[in-house]
Amino acid sequence: MKEVSVRETVYNRPFIWQRADPYILRCEDGGCYFTASVPEYDRIILRYADTLTGLRDAEEKTVWVKHESGPQSIHIWAPELHRIDGCWYIYYAGGDVDDIWEIRPYVLRCAGDPMRDPWEELGPMLPADDDPFSFRAFSLDATVFSHRGDWYMVWAEKVGVGRQISNLYIARMASPTKLATVQVLLTTPDYDWERGEFWVNEGPALLRHDGKLFLTFSANTTGELYCMGMLWCDEDAELLDPANWTKLRHPVFRSDDEKEVHGPGHNSFVKAEDGVTDLCVYHARQYDKMVGNPLYDPNRHVYIMPVTFDQNGFPEFRHLPQEW
Amino acid sequence: MKEVSVRETVYNRPFIWQRADPYILRCEDGGCYFTASVPEYDRIILRYADTLTGLRDAEEKTVWVKHESGPQSIHIWAPELHRIDGCWYIYYAGGDVDDIWEIRPYVLRCAGDPMRDPWEELGPMLPADDDPFSFRAFSLDATVFSHRGDWYMVWAEKVGVGRQISNLYIARMASPTKLATVQVLLTTPDYDWERGEFWVNEGPALLRHDGKLFLTFSANTTGELYCMGMLWCDEDAELLDPANWTKLRHPVFRSDDEKEVHGPGHNSFVKAEDGVTDLCVYHARQYDKMVGNPLYDPNRHVYIMPVTFDQNGFPEFRHLPQEW
Repeated sequence: MKEVSVRETVYNRPFIWQRADPYILRCEDGGCYFTASVPEYDRIILRYADTLTGLRDAEEKTVWVKHESGPQSIHIWAPELHRIDGCWYIYYAGGDVDDIWEIRPYVLRCAGDPMRDPWEELGPMLPADDDPFSFRAFSLDATVFSHRGDWYMVWAEKVGVGRQISNLYIARMASPTKLATVQVLLTTPDYDWERGEFWVNEGPALLRHDGKLFLTFSANTTGELYCMGMLWCDEDAELLDPANWTKLRHPVFRSDDEKEVHGPGHNSFVKAEDGVTDLCVYHARQYDKMVGNPLYDPNRHVYIMPVTFDQNGFPEFRHLPQEW
Repeated sequence: MKEVSVRETVYNRPFIWQRADPYILRCEDGGCYFTASVPEYDRIILRYADTLTGLRDAEEKTVWVKHESGPQSIHIWAPELHRIDGCWYIYYAGGDVDDIWEIRPYVLRCAGDPMRDPWEELGPMLPADDDPFSFRAFSLDATVFSHRGDWYMVWAEKVGVGRQISNLYIARMASPTKLATVQVLLTTPDYDWERGEFWVNEGPALLRHDGKLFLTFSANTTGELYCMGMLWCDEDAELLDPANWTKLRHPVFRSDDEKEVHGPGHNSFVKAEDGVTDLCVYHARQYDKMVGNPLYDPNRHVYIMPVTFDQNGFPEFRHLPQEW
């Protein structure tokens, strides 16, 4: 671990250390799985515990290791675990050691116990037959969710010549490994807070509350400016019509110097033990001074906060003292 | 002129033959200038007449000819004439014979009489210093307008690797040849009617009415599917905030087989002789059967229709019998 000077506050004590892009899935029996990017970006790890807090000290198992060369051989990022039609799937992104930014989304499947049984490679996520645009450039952070009988994927993909811009897209899925529809643009970096050295929207996560679907995402360059933005859509609306999604003008969660919470983002959502309270699981750093590329600083840690809702039913993401 | 079989209707008699991307500017004294793309895409033409209808038979003058090689040597497209701070400017797009799709926007200036005095080349339109994205790829159809003391440019530019998508962007201008702000995305092809063989938004044109700014644009592949869409924004709103622009779910004007009006679009707006009625100037074809690439079929002709407004103050674009 790098030597860094950290000012500890009640707000920046990690739930899990040195894991980024955290994702927690709670099963119907209450048991919880955890996965995340590891600082080496070389493998996919899983933890399981009977309770969410049990994940802190749960044994971590490596369920998949990067290839030696070719696709999926470097930059293994942002795994998510999902259960679709009775099987387990992990969606993740990976690059190629010979072309390290050729990042694409890939899929693993496990028909048995995610912690003990083998994970089979299903290869790259495929666009719809008539979609010449999706997964053609740097694309990652795929998340999936079901809504009224259909599965949808939301992912980040870069566009442009020369320097590129990372947008978020949505499509309906034909199967766990293939899209049914062409891409629909959900959000592009529109505002100052999304546009630093890089213009980025990534890390989408879905939250349902009181008739609305909320889609949080992470914006800006990985580092101090990294923050969370949000879109929302009425649950009765057609999800593939971008006119039904409204983007909030300002970020919903960002760095706080006083509390020493830096570059928060790439979150996911999970219910608390009570089955009612929504928790936001995110990563952040405890300091803003980094040596070198923030992407290779290992000290993004995992935090959890309860989500509160305002009088309009919109989620609030507050800098709260950590319970751990 | 190509031999084509045309069924004449009262709806498809051209105002001006074989000119595409038509643009008319009316001066304070009522006199009108006309410019457009010519089928050879090799020059910029101007017409002047004391009345709008006089443009039909007005002498056409070539005010600028493409270069022999290098930038601006092929595909000279969609000129527009504007008066900014006491000078005349023509905004147009051009490619390079050695790289014919390297289309970029360029600017000409004339300090005297547009029909008689020389036009000076000011070179390519420049992005803001801190904008690494604008005018880097296939970009064209720049239009400019002033609003509350500032000048704005809206243009079309393609993004993507391999096959590309043409979007519309807006920025504030620092001068007639340079932007002051980084690009803001206004619209991307979201819907079926914008997505044919190519996914295209282009040809923006501004119309003001009753407290609103309307921005029409053309969508889809040049040919039968070409049509007009529209965005609108409150005139009091910040134009550089994309959240203030609303895109209509359906096209506002499209092909009509019965009337033999095909692929209408790339419009501009001008006031009628009464100074009140808004006219929509657009091009269309009289048939949908084309031999070869629609881009090189010369028979896009100019049409003019009066714009009506519905009870909400939104413009309506009706297939009306042509007056000429």
